[in-house]
Amino acid sequence: MYVIGERINGMFKDVRGSIRKHDTKVIQELARAQAQAGARALDLNVGPASADAAGAMLWLVETVRAVSDLPLCIDSPKWEIQKQVVPRVPGQKIINSTKADAEELDRFVGLAVETGAGLVGLTIDQQGVPATVEKRVELGAAIASKALERGLPMERLFIDPIILPVNVAPQQPGNVLSALSQLKMLSDPPPHLLLGLSNVSQNCSNRELINRTYLIMALAAGLDSAIMDPLDAELMNAAITTELLQGHSIYCDSFLDAHRMRR
Amino acid sequence: MYVIGERINGMFKDVRGSIRKHDTKVIQELARAQAQAGARALDLNVGPASADAAGAMLWLVETVRAVSDLPLCIDSPKWEIQKQVVPRVPGQKIINSTKADAEELDRFVGLAVETGAGLVGLTIDQQGVPATVEKRVELGAAIASKALERGLPMERLFIDPIILPVNVAPQQPGNVLSALSQLKMLSDPPPHLLLGLSNVSQNCSNRELINRTYLIMALAAGLDSAIMDPLDAELMNAAITTELLQGHSIYCDSFLDAHRMRR
Repeated sequence: MYVIGERINGMFKDVRGSIRKHDTKVIQELARAQAQAGARALDLNVGPASADAAGAMLWLVETVRAVSDLPLCIDSPKWEIQKQVVPRVPGQKIINSTKADAEELDRFVGLAVETGAGLVGLTIDQQGVPATVEKRVELGAAIASKALERGLPMERLFIDPIILPVNVAPQQPGNVLSALSQLKMLSDPPPHLLLGLSNVSQNCSNRELINRTYLIMALAAGLDSAIMDPLDAELMNAAITTELLQGHSIYCDSFLDAHRMRR
Repeated sequence: MYVIGERINGMFKDVRGSIRKHDTKVIQELARAQAQAGARALDLNVGPASADAAGAMLWLVETVRAVSDLPLCIDSPKWEIQKQVVPRVPGQKIINSTKADAEELDRFVGLAVETGAGLVGLTIDQQGVPATVEKRVELGAAIASKALERGLPMERLFIDPIILPVNVAPQQPGNVLSALSQLKMLSDPPPHLLLGLSNVSQNCSNRELINRTYLIMALAAGLDSAIMDPLDAELMNAAITTELLQGHSIYCDSFLDAHRMRR
């Protein structure tokens, strides 16, 4: 699966402090550690760390790019930030994220096409996060259609059907699984299907257990990518073992280590 | 989910020794411990412990029934043993198992109807375990048809699509998931869908990780029952958390303990 490392996010205290002090050490260490643990891209999110969000994001890009060639996932819902930052990211990058409203979607898809970036599209419109499976699939289809129309290849599109915390929306995890199994049939090849995994367990106890259980369920339903914590070794073991049981890799006694050594 | 405890099996050394010595202590302790941990039925399998398999099975039945009212799952492929033992099991019981060959199936379904027992039907015929999804579904349908024809209600029928070890049959775990998602649409209500879970990791390293990962995948695909080890607390946590994420139970901070206390 395509793991996007979630740890460089101003919501975490260590990252927030580093952004404020322009201290590269913690950030670069998190970049290296996540890559080492299996991340194939790195999410960068300024969070509440700075009043100058674009400036802080550009500093994060420069800091991480100095130690990693991985695709950088520019995590902000704001067009102003994406428009300023994305053209200035050296190497591979992913815009994270656009909603499915026609006008916003058109703008973001255009930026992805112009800059060679990937794009995360959320199945959200002006009514917010859909309550139903059908509406998630409809919005996912709208995102994929727009990408096809503007010439953004499916390999660069990530559709995120939005997982809500199980403690506030008990039926939504099941709805998202149903949406995933339908969205993977959108096109051939399909777009990537992505979740911001940790959200399923927001403010829950047993967070890591919930995260890895849901990751396995979602992978089985068609997910192929997640923004998640690659430093959670049990979570990564769950992902590796799921892929083994899906027949995506071949068993050997050291399959966990073998997967990690392939990197 | 409907957990059938696997531990009273002559393949385990402690159980084998106890059967040979007619020592009730270990057996009764395993019966109690599995019930306490969440088993809703107890599998009884003499294994290689005794030349008089029917006699040993009747001793197991008597020994376990003295301490537990749970349904007892009489685990032997042999008609001679089932025919002798099942009518003499007090309380609820499940015949485990019949293959899908017409003649054998008819005999076993008849015994289940006559004795009020449940029945496990394996999707195996004279050609052995099917290599394809389609054949598993076809044999599952044959089992369900025979049950309907003879008046065995679906609530007492368990269809087992047969999981093979991932190290010898790497495509089979995926095939079984596809079969499960089709088999759950066989009838309304559907039969129970069962796996002998531990078989997926036979002779593998990281057995518990493989077992619990596959259990989550299979539950997400439609499994509702497994012969498994309820004494593996992480396995039970995985099952409880999967049911939470399927919306079968409601989140509370102590959802693991709450589930266990409901028992």
